[in-house]
Amino acid sequence: MAKMRSVTLVAPRRFEIVEVDKPEVDDDSVIVKVEGHGICGSNLHFWHGGGSANAMCCYPMPGAAGHEFGGVVTEAGRNVRRVKVGDRIAVDFFHSTACGVCPYCTAGWPNQCTGRAAHATGGYVDYLKLSERGLHILPDTIATHAAAIAEPAAAPVSALRRAGLRGGEQVVVLGAGVLGLAAVGAAKAMGAGRVIVTAKYDQQAQFAQAFGADVVVRGSGDASVEEIRSHLDGGAADIVVETVGGHAPTLGQATDIVRPRGEVLVLGLWEELVPVDSWKSVLKDVTYRFCLTYGTQGLKTDFGYTVDLMGSRKVPMQDLVTHVMPLERIGEAFEVAADKSRGAMKVILVP
Amino acid sequence: MAKMRSVTLVAPRRFEIVEVDKPEVDDDSVIVKVEGHGICGSNLHFWHGGGSANAMCCYPMPGAAGHEFGGVVTEAGRNVRRVKVGDRIAVDFFHSTACGVCPYCTAGWPNQCTGRAAHATGGYVDYLKLSERGLHILPDTIATHAAAIAEPAAAPVSALRRAGLRGGEQVVVLGAGVLGLAAVGAAKAMGAGRVIVTAKYDQQAQFAQAFGADVVVRGSGDASVEEIRSHLDGGAADIVVETVGGHAPTLGQATDIVRPRGEVLVLGLWEELVPVDSWKSVLKDVTYRFCLTYGTQGLKTDFGYTVDLMGSRKVPMQDLVTHVMPLERIGEAFEVAADKSRGAMKVILVP
Amino acid sequence: MAKMRSVTLVAPRRFEIVEVDKPEVDDDSVIVKVEGHGICGSNLHFWHGGGSANAMCCYPMPGAAGHEFGGVVTEAGRNVRRVKVGDRIAVDFFHSTACGVCPYCTAGWPNQCTGRAAHATGGYVDYLKLSERGLHILPDTIATHAAAIAEPAAAPVSALRRAGLRGGEQVVVLGAGVLGLAAVGAAKAMGAGRVIVTAKYDQQAQFAQAFGADVVVRGSGDASVEEIRSHLDGGAADIVVETVGGHAPTLGQATDIVRPRGEVLVLGLWEELVPVDSWKSVLKDVTYRFCLTYGTQGLKTDFGYTVDLMGSRKVPMQDLVTHVMPLERIGEAFEVAADKSRGAMKVILVP
Amino acid sequence: MAKMRSVTLVAPRRFEIVEVDKPEVDDDSVIVKVEGHGICGSNLHFWHGGGSANAMCCYPMPGAAGHEFGGVVTEAGRNVRRVKVGDRIAVDFFHSTACGVCPYCTAGWPNQCTGRAAHATGGYVDYLKLSERGLHILPDTIATHAAAIAEPAAAPVSALRRAGLRGGEQVVVLGAGVLGLAAVGAAKAMGAGRVIVTAKYDQQAQFAQAFGADVVVRGSGDASVEEIRSHLDGGAADIVVETVGGHAPTLGQATDIVRPRGEVLVLGLWEELVPVDSWKSVLKDVTYRFCLTYGTQGLKTDFGYTVDLMGSRKVPMQDLVTHVMPLERIGEAFEVAADKSRGAMKVILVP
Repeated sequence: MAKMRSVTLVAPRRFEIVEVDKPEVDDDSVIVKVEGHGICGSNLHFWHGGGSANAMCCYPMPGAAGHEFGGVVTEAGRNVRRVKVGDRIAVDFFHSTACGVCPYCTAGWPNQCTGRAAHATGGYVDYLKLSERGLHILPDTIATHAAAIAEPAAAPVSALRRAGLRGGEQVVVLGAGVLGLAAVGAAKAMGAGRVIVTAKYDQQAQFAQAFGADVVVRGSGDASVEEIRSHLDGGAADIVVETVGGHAPTLGQATDIVRPRGEVLVLGLWEELVPVDSWKSVLKDVTYRFCLTYGTQGLKTDFGYTVDLMGSRKVPMQDLVTHVMPLERIGEAFEVAADKSRGAMKVILVP
Repeated sequence: MAKMRSVTLVAPRRFEIVEVDKPEVDDDSVIVKVEGHGICGSNLHFWHGGGSANAMCCYPMPGAAGHEFGGVVTEAGRNVRRVKVGDRIAVDFFHSTACGVCPYCTAGWPNQCTGRAAHATGGYVDYLKLSERGLHILPDTIATHAAAIAEPAAAPVSALRRAGLRGGEQVVVLGAGVLGLAAVGAAKAMGAGRVIVTAKYDQQAQFAQAFGADVVVRGSGDASVEEIRSHLDGGAADIVVETVGGHAPTLGQATDIVRPRGEVLVLGLWEELVPVDSWKSVLKDVTYRFCLTYGTQGLKTDFGYTVDLMGSRKVPMQDLVTHVMPLERIGEAFEVAADKSRGAMKVILVP
Repeated sequence: MAKMRSVTLVAPRRFEIVEVDKPEVDDDSVIVKVEGHGICGSNLHFWHGGGSANAMCCYPMPGAAGHEFGGVVTEAGRNVRRVKVGDRIAVDFFHSTACGVCPYCTAGWPNQCTGRAAHATGGYVDYLKLSERGLHILPDTIATHAAAIAEPAAAPVSALRRAGLRGGEQVVVLGAGVLGLAAVGAAKAMGAGRVIVTAKYDQQAQFAQAFGADVVVRGSGDASVEEIRSHLDGGAADIVVETVGGHAPTLGQATDIVRPRGEVLVLGLWEELVPVDSWKSVLKDVTYRFCLTYGTQGLKTDFGYTVDLMGSRKVPMQDLVTHVMPLERIGEAFEVAADKSRGAMKVILVP
Repeated sequence: MAKMRSVTLVAPRRFEIVEVDKPEVDDDSVIVKVEGHGICGSNLHFWHGGGSANAMCCYPMPGAAGHEFGGVVTEAGRNVRRVKVGDRIAVDFFHSTACGVCPYCTAGWPNQCTGRAAHATGGYVDYLKLSERGLHILPDTIATHAAAIAEPAAAPVSALRRAGLRGGEQVVVLGAGVLGLAAVGAAKAMGAGRVIVTAKYDQQAQFAQAFGADVVVRGSGDASVEEIRSHLDGGAADIVVETVGGHAPTLGQATDIVRPRGEVLVLGLWEELVPVDSWKSVLKDVTYRFCLTYGTQGLKTDFGYTVDLMGSRKVPMQDLVTHVMPLERIGEAFEVAADKSRGAMKVILVP
């Protein structure tokens, strides 16, 4: 049986590259050669030693240790209709590994599939075996390895579509990493009237302007809340997109910034329980949507729409790839990704 | 190869029973022995000679030769998880024959599947080969043959869910056949405040009351519009469900009855083009939703919710089965179904 | 100038009845003689000494000194069209004191009105001066003093309408006070398939069954979470309505009970910041809606629909009035209301 | 009492300018000097002799004979807070003449107000007496007289917001008059992925490209349907905006172009009943929304959002003003407006 590489986290901040069986195609599946792996914030979380060792293999879905992929179809089963060998693709991994039969799959939210197959190998591998369902053929404007960034970018796109912009909204984005910048660009593309974003690092601030932010607020803390509100008509936002998490007080800030009956879209994750002020939240009728990944809204999947935004360069998320490193140097790549002061926006691992 | 019966319409009002290959199970499918076939209004349409002869075979077009089924699982492929041999079931035929991969399937509307497999045999057959996706296990309160009525009943249930009741709505249902009565019961179950229905035949009027209608209006024409309006607060309905079609002036009546910004749910089919008054419709901001069958809204399919309503006897649609006849007498059964003055609500064919 | 009584909280748990000017009618307003005042949980909060003394006066903040009213129209300005002298009414106080011009009023959410007039007198008064907008004429099935309960009952009704039931949902209600019981009855009326409620006191459990709960779970804590889940298909609820607050761990319980992509409707208020588990919430794509009061959804206001549910006795919330006491005994009445172990569901103060 | 001019249609195609009382301000109202009157397609309809003479004064709301206004506040009652004397404004006439109390006003759809005050003078007048509710202060980028075009432009903006774009939709607009062009620009601003428009006249085609249309199709008839479909992924549109009416076959074309489960937004008006193919519509689950004017969606009114789009020049609808003529020449102005072959997009009457 053919072999391929796979990466395992054997201890905090320590990877090992092992050899595992290469998956074999069957009638209904596709083999994808991975040309680009993204490093997700949740990957960094486990790498730092957060979560259990166990979680590295199963959270939040099979292959969590890497779930951002761009690649090429190398084999296709005989029932496969939407892609063919040689196609360059972005991978909606949740959709391509879902059962297709459970209520969540039927309802268009395969990220919550209750029948997902167990996944033998982790995600930092050379080849994937997938259903064709989540594969999106790339236009010439997206390099194969850079397509991996569609995966994280699709999450804020999905969150904003859940909120449902009607045009002219004032949107505040807390944080200007990949999620925050994708939120900025997507909000503008979807009709927001004004988008304000907080950015900690210089490279984030530069990208924020390139992605169409009307105002970029540097710094954080209570002062930034006041500054943000000073830029908003009525002093409050229709929608706040939280993308920071960690130990930041950004959920409370979002509560202070959002207008009555507004929505807070929460993409960040906090190590500890995060406190909510129920009085403020009730008095303003605030809705908080905690958002895992993406799904289907209307007839178009959030992931597909994200690829469209990248392909048309309306929101050129592929430009956020600042570092490209070979898979062998995954340890070093994680160090680069973890230290944003060194200028990294997105680190992509290539074969 | 094993054989089974299948019915073909060879000319208007003339059926032939032929022998065809019995379908064979594979890993991902289920064989269902049909214990009850419903006769749909669209079947009657083709039987009368409307539509082309061709249409009789071209599933999934409405009018396909039988698509309302109750049955028993007799074989199940090894990948099947949700049902097992011996289970009594209702069949969401659209869902069970859909591709599961196209955008409509992903979005929860398999009735509009763009990749549906060609269908070798017509619908009035002894055995069906299906995906498990659309199979719903029956509670003891629903006889197997009577489960066939879940299929037509699910259409008005779906239409009302598309409209989205918030509680307290005034709903008018035009027509008290199976679709209309299901609409009456479902509207009450979903929180309508007042439901008014028009009924032509005595048996319809009796069932309408049993299904919870607040007012049953006999007769038709302009007089009935005035009578209906006299029973409505403000003289207009939030939602009008049209279930008559044919040559009836019911779409115009619906326009006259619905309130500004209300919705007309159209389930009927007219032989000829149906005229709409654009001035009235614009001045009232009317929405018309033409509704084919059913899909997924929230996490529950419209079909699944319909089976729930029948199972709990909140809306005992199974009681509408007034005639049960063997498949051999299909020609006679169609005559009974076509002539509502003879008291038929629903005719079911059994093996 | 005519005088009337008004109640002021001068110190924690100490009221004084004072004499103030009786309001005077003008062209666009109505004078209502209050026949019944409800005691709200937020009133109890301030009475206990929570919040600032200031808050007691700063309407429309919850906790304003009385905002649940049933009464009779005693004077009506010449521009008033919807009510007349002698009409018995329930009072949507938020709507009747809103400006009618600001974006929130235009959008149907007068509870968030940004132009509300300063309010000279507290709420435990003999007469109110109001716009006709929020007045709802009572049917014979609702006693005037008992109509005061429409106000708190409208909040869970509104919350459930915001969530938007499609029929067949599994709903869990945490807490069986007035808010919880109204949620139980409203959820059933709006089409929920199964409603499970937790009840601490015997009288709550009895009312819960009368209001249609499918399952009543006694006790609280982790054991009750497990018991609740054992009664749910799939072990999780589509919607959880939290009505407890205080110091209870009910928000975390709601997070554990709700299904992926489900909604938690938060009506409770906690003294301290309430902790949310972001990992659980993100992994399940949970939406939390903190709900102040009520508004307009579709064409019917939440308050109007609540009066309809009471009037038809579909949800006989008026039956929850267990104690009726004269306004002079307001101090004693608060003691009764605060100690649920003495059997009180709702205490109403009458002139 | 001060006097002003008013225009009356005394016979088809024959106006008279008469002198009427100038309205007087009161505490709650504003006097607006009209600096620009638009000529609406519905005005042309009556001018041609369609409708009854009566209708000219009362359809579909007071002042139908002119309801598109830009102006300046000349007097403001003492209760007025949102505007002051000297403010240049666009007028949401429906909102400013609505009762503010009826269910439609409460629900944010004052265009369907059931309590609108009778209106003594027609719309082509020098001064209007209005509630401040519908007045929108103009930015420097919009000339006062040109602000009149916000009124018709708001209708397609509203229709698209009702449909609710989620991003990436394919939108087809039939007709490139003011309504069609506003639809093109608004659809792009709200996140449509591709917008295709049909244009009869050269000036329309030029504006269509300036407003961001991806494809402009010249001509009409069946050939144009095929051409339109050839430019659409999947050969069908998510949303079709019909803006032609008259005697055109555009509703049938919309039915042919829209995808299954798509929406047709109908802004046109047909003299005669317009035929709908129920079979095609049912088989595709088509929704038709007939749209009168505009309302409130989210917290922002459709009219306010339209002014925003004009003010930011994201959709510079003010550029569509091709002719400016004095009120005295209203007869000639109608001739120009009625004959689009002479190059008119929008004719504005100034004092």
